[in-house]
Amino acid sequence: MNKHYSYSSALIVGMGLIGSSIARSLKENKIAEKVYALDNNEDIINTTNELKIVDDIKNNLNKFTIQFDIIFICTPLSAYKNIFDQLNNYVKQYTLMTDVGSTKVSVIEDYKSIVDNKHIAFLPAHPIAGLEKSGPEFGFAKLFGNRYCILTPISNEDKFIEKIASVWKSFGMTTEIMEASRHDRVLAMTSHIPQLIAYSVVGTATDLETQMKDEVIKYSAAGFRDFTRLAGSDPVMWRDIYAKNKEAVLEMLGRFSEDLLTFQKAIRNNDIQFLEEKFSKSKDIRKIIEEIGQAGSFDPTEKN
Amino acid sequence: MNKHYSYSSALIVGMGLIGSSIARSLKENKIAEKVYALDNNEDIINTTNELKIVDDIKNNLNKFTIQFDIIFICTPLSAYKNIFDQLNNYVKQYTLMTDVGSTKVSVIEDYKSIVDNKHIAFLPAHPIAGLEKSGPEFGFAKLFGNRYCILTPISNEDKFIEKIASVWKSFGMTTEIMEASRHDRVLAMTSHIPQLIAYSVVGTATDLETQMKDEVIKYSAAGFRDFTRLAGSDPVMWRDIYAKNKEAVLEMLGRFSEDLLTFQKAIRNNDIQFLEEKFSKSKDIRKIIEEIGQAGSFDPTEKN
Repeated sequence: MNKHYSYSSALIVGMGLIGSSIARSLKENKIAEKVYALDNNEDIINTTNELKIVDDIKNNLNKFTIQFDIIFICTPLSAYKNIFDQLNNYVKQYTLMTDVGSTKVSVIEDYKSIVDNKHIAFLPAHPIAGLEKSGPEFGFAKLFGNRYCILTPISNEDKFIEKIASVWKSFGMTTEIMEASRHDRVLAMTSHIPQLIAYSVVGTATDLETQMKDEVIKYSAAGFRDFTRLAGSDPVMWRDIYAKNKEAVLEMLGRFSEDLLTFQKAIRNNDIQFLEEKFSKSKDIRKIIEEIGQAGSFDPTEKN
Repeated sequence: MNKHYSYSSALIVGMGLIGSSIARSLKENKIAEKVYALDNNEDIINTTNELKIVDDIKNNLNKFTIQFDIIFICTPLSAYKNIFDQLNNYVKQYTLMTDVGSTKVSVIEDYKSIVDNKHIAFLPAHPIAGLEKSGPEFGFAKLFGNRYCILTPISNEDKFIEKIASVWKSFGMTTEIMEASRHDRVLAMTSHIPQLIAYSVVGTATDLETQMKDEVIKYSAAGFRDFTRLAGSDPVMWRDIYAKNKEAVLEMLGRFSEDLLTFQKAIRNNDIQFLEEKFSKSKDIRKIIEEIGQAGSFDPTEKN
């Protein structure tokens, strides 16, 4: 029963929801004996200390004196260049490195433009798992269970791909290798566009005259609340995603706007058959997502 | 402990998710001693019988021989005229009547154009509660707990408003009186637009080339799945809503499209400050909805 740890030390850069979930997973699955964290936000440092989910957390990489076996980058995308630069100087021995960034072309570009340290073995990754909450207090190890982790190797020759993939697998994830540019297009559609639309709907609804706005909030259980759930996510993380995946997002947004116009036209023209057909098709898609076990579960009642 | 029933008989017209939830609520809260149902779908009749949630269910109103104390109309909106016509002929004694339709101006118009039976006391209502599932097997009494029920009286002088309101309250709902046209505008924004956008996003995503489509479904946990959840609702019910609330839907859709364009422009122009500000505002709205207890709860893991 006394399973050995795979690694003696891990560093998590950025202790938000995902970073803290990784910290918990590393401990619970006995992947790393010691888990360290780096964050520049004092509140997050205090919360992390209170939660006792890492062995130590510092606000500056150079306050550490040890080297790490594996490093997870879990910050907003706009911080990557600076972090790559710091790690490029800090790392003195062979170190596995992976990340959780929601775009992958930009991450690889940032990496290539900065890192020339031969000790670093970097496999860009994107665990498709999350929650609209931000902050270490919301993290939990099971977040990754039964979810996919997309890996976008810088070179398919990289010898360490299997090693890092097996860490993601140990969290309960299924790994898939994909080209970075394809990842960015797929995620534009599955994640970045839904999120942008959710923000936009919330904006439209709450720009209405004051009394109307109050009523929209009050009666949000009619469907609007699902959009606000997405819109509860971290603004800085999302801001960065749109800056970094601009082309794919604009392409998919264009397609969406065209499709929405066809719905608008059908409503204007009382083409209820068109609507019913389109709605039925969507219902079928939902069924598939439930069948493959990627639907999550929604409880329409309140927990408290 | 032996609470008396408020009414001796109730009829539910349309045994979908909402109708079956009302049936259960009437029994659990001891509102009606006998609960009867009417539905023209054989599968729904069989399921309802298997579930044993009503005393009797028939496929034709004229197969009943008794009169009812209270009637709930829970069908798609396109069936209302026909049902009003049948009830107009059937009802022979004082009968309370309410409905659950998602638009209210059209319901009142249909009612006024058909019903002249002085025994019928009709209070149009819209319980703001639901789930993306359809069918009597998914109903449950607690669906209405802690949710609002909007009442749009045909005349504020109607003497039976409080009587019917108290039935909705007995299900755990808070009732609010609103003008029908205002209801339709508020619901266009909180319900009909989010739903239409959800359908549209699902359509866009699944119109992509085949391989891309498979990946969009596979990685739907990234946000897309939340849109498919809404899109899992009953196509006929929704088709009817857009036909009946055309003007308000088109108005709100126009506003939404304008707002989405400002996001598109901000992304194209790298205006990340605009994005961050808008995103932060949305996060605040989400917080309010959680605070007033209308958020529901989402579990990102699978139940099975």
